[in-house]
Amino acid sequence: MGFQLKLGERLDDLMTKGLYLIQSEEVFSFSMDAVLLAHYASVRPNDRVLDLGTGNGVIPILLTTRTRYPLKRIVGLELQERLADMARRSVEGNKLDDLIDIVRGDLREAVSLFGAGQFDLVTCNPPYLPVGQGDPNANEHVRIARHEMTCTLHDAVKAAGQMTKSGGKAAFVHRPDRLADLLYEMRCAKLEPKRMRLVYPRISQKPSIILVEAIKNGKPDLKIDPPLIVYGEDGKWTEEVEAIYNGGSGSHGEEI
Amino acid sequence: MGFQLKLGERLDDLMTKGLYLIQSEEVFSFSMDAVLLAHYASVRPNDRVLDLGTGNGVIPILLTTRTRYPLKRIVGLELQERLADMARRSVEGNKLDDLIDIVRGDLREAVSLFGAGQFDLVTCNPPYLPVGQGDPNANEHVRIARHEMTCTLHDAVKAAGQMTKSGGKAAFVHRPDRLADLLYEMRCAKLEPKRMRLVYPRISQKPSIILVEAIKNGKPDLKIDPPLIVYGEDGKWTEEVEAIYNGGSGSHGEEI
Repeated sequence: MGFQLKLGERLDDLMTKGLYLIQSEEVFSFSMDAVLLAHYASVRPNDRVLDLGTGNGVIPILLTTRTRYPLKRIVGLELQERLADMARRSVEGNKLDDLIDIVRGDLREAVSLFGAGQFDLVTCNPPYLPVGQGDPNANEHVRIARHEMTCTLHDAVKAAGQMTKSGGKAAFVHRPDRLADLLYEMRCAKLEPKRMRLVYPRISQKPSIILVEAIKNGKPDLKIDPPLIVYGEDGKWTEEVEAIYNGGSGSHGEEI
Repeated sequence: MGFQLKLGERLDDLMTKGLYLIQSEEVFSFSMDAVLLAHYASVRPNDRVLDLGTGNGVIPILLTTRTRYPLKRIVGLELQERLADMARRSVEGNKLDDLIDIVRGDLREAVSLFGAGQFDLVTCNPPYLPVGQGDPNANEHVRIARHEMTCTLHDAVKAAGQMTKSGGKAAFVHRPDRLADLLYEMRCAKLEPKRMRLVYPRISQKPSIILVEAIKNGKPDLKIDPPLIVYGEDGKWTEEVEAIYNGGSGSHGEEI
C-alpha cells in the first residue's frame, strides 16, 4: 500500500471499507469518540465539510464512507504540524487526496483561512480536559490534543458557528460533564442544538460520551435519540456498536 | 378522613405513606413527571423548599416523604385560585399544614412575595407547551397549567434563580425538546446544571422526560445519571420505577 510511514508510526486498519490510518504512540490516537461522531453527523452528497482539530484525520477519512455519492470536499484543520503531516499521509495512502484537504492552522483563525459560512457541515472532537486536569507528564502533542491548552470549548464552538453556513450543521462529541457548556456555547454561536445522543457504556452506568448536532440559525427543538449502549450484558459490543464499526452508513437514514 | 371535597372532585391515593390528593377532571391532574421530580430533587432535613407553579400541590406533599427528619417548610406557589384551594385542602387532609404553605400568586412576583434567595431548594414542573400548541379546546385551567400562557420557561427559571440561595438547589422536570432552552436559561439565571437524568419509556425509545438539578452559583460540572427506563421488556414498570412510586426515598442516597 502507498502509506509513507515514519519512525515510530504504525498503520492501523480502520476496519471500514478498506481504510487505514497512520498512528503513533507518541501522539494522540483516535478513540471511539471520533468513530461515533463520524457516524452521527448528518452528511449529504455534495456537502462541503470542515473538521476542526482533525488530529490524525480519522474523522474526514471515516466521513467518506457515509454516503454512496461523494461529498464535495472535506477539509481537516489541525494546529499541530506533526499530526497534520500524519493525516496527509493517511489521506494519500487511502487515495482520498482528491476529496480531503488537510490544512495546518489554528481554528481560532478559521474565518481568515477559509472565509465565514462556507461549509454545510462542521465536525469537531475538541480537547476534553480543562488545563490542569489529567496527566501532566503526557508529552506536548498529547496534552494539546487532550487539554484546552490551545483551544477552549468556547473557541471551538465559536469557530464552528462562524464556519457553518446558515441552515448548515455542526456536530460535536464531548464528555457529559460539559453538556451544559456545549449547549450554552452552541446557542451563543447561533448553533441551535437539534439532535443529541447519550452513549452509555452499559445500561446501568452513567453516560460516557455525548453527541450533539446543531443547525446554524435553527429554531429551538431538540430531539434526543434512544440511548446508545456500548456493551451488552454478555460484555460484548451491542449489535448497534458493532454495526457502527463495521458498517459505515449512518444511524440516521440509509446510505444515500 | 378529613379531606373536604367539592363538587366534581375525587380523592386519589398517592400510594406513598398513606398520602392522598384531591384532584378533578376539570383541572390539570398530576403526572409521572411530578412524581419523578419529587423523587429526584436533593432534599435535606431542615431545608426550606419552594415549589413554583405547584398546581394541586402534589410535589410539596410527596417531598414530605423524602427525609425521615422533616423539612423546615415547603411553600407551594400557584397562580390559579382553584388549584391553590384544592392544594390547601389536600395539605390539610394529609395533616401537613404545619409543614406546607400554599400561596396563591404569580411566580414572576416571587421576589416581592418571599424575598430573594430564601430557599435551599426550588422545584418546578413548568408548563411544557409553547402557546399555540396542544389542544385548543381544553378549558382555561388546563391550558394555563400546560401552556406557557402565564409563565414561560424563561420566567420559571428566572424565578427559581432569584429564589434559590447561593449554594442551594433548583430542580426542574421538562420535555427533552426543551433541554437546550432549560440548560441555557439556567446558566443565564446563575443556576449551574449539576445533575441530569433522562427518562426513556423503553430502552429502544427516545426519552420522554428530563430531570435537571442545578446549584445556584455552582461551578460547571454536570453529572448525567444512568438512564431511567420506565417499562421493561415484559411491558411492566421496571423495578426502579416501581420503587419510586411505592418507596418514597430518593434515588440518590438513603433516607436521611
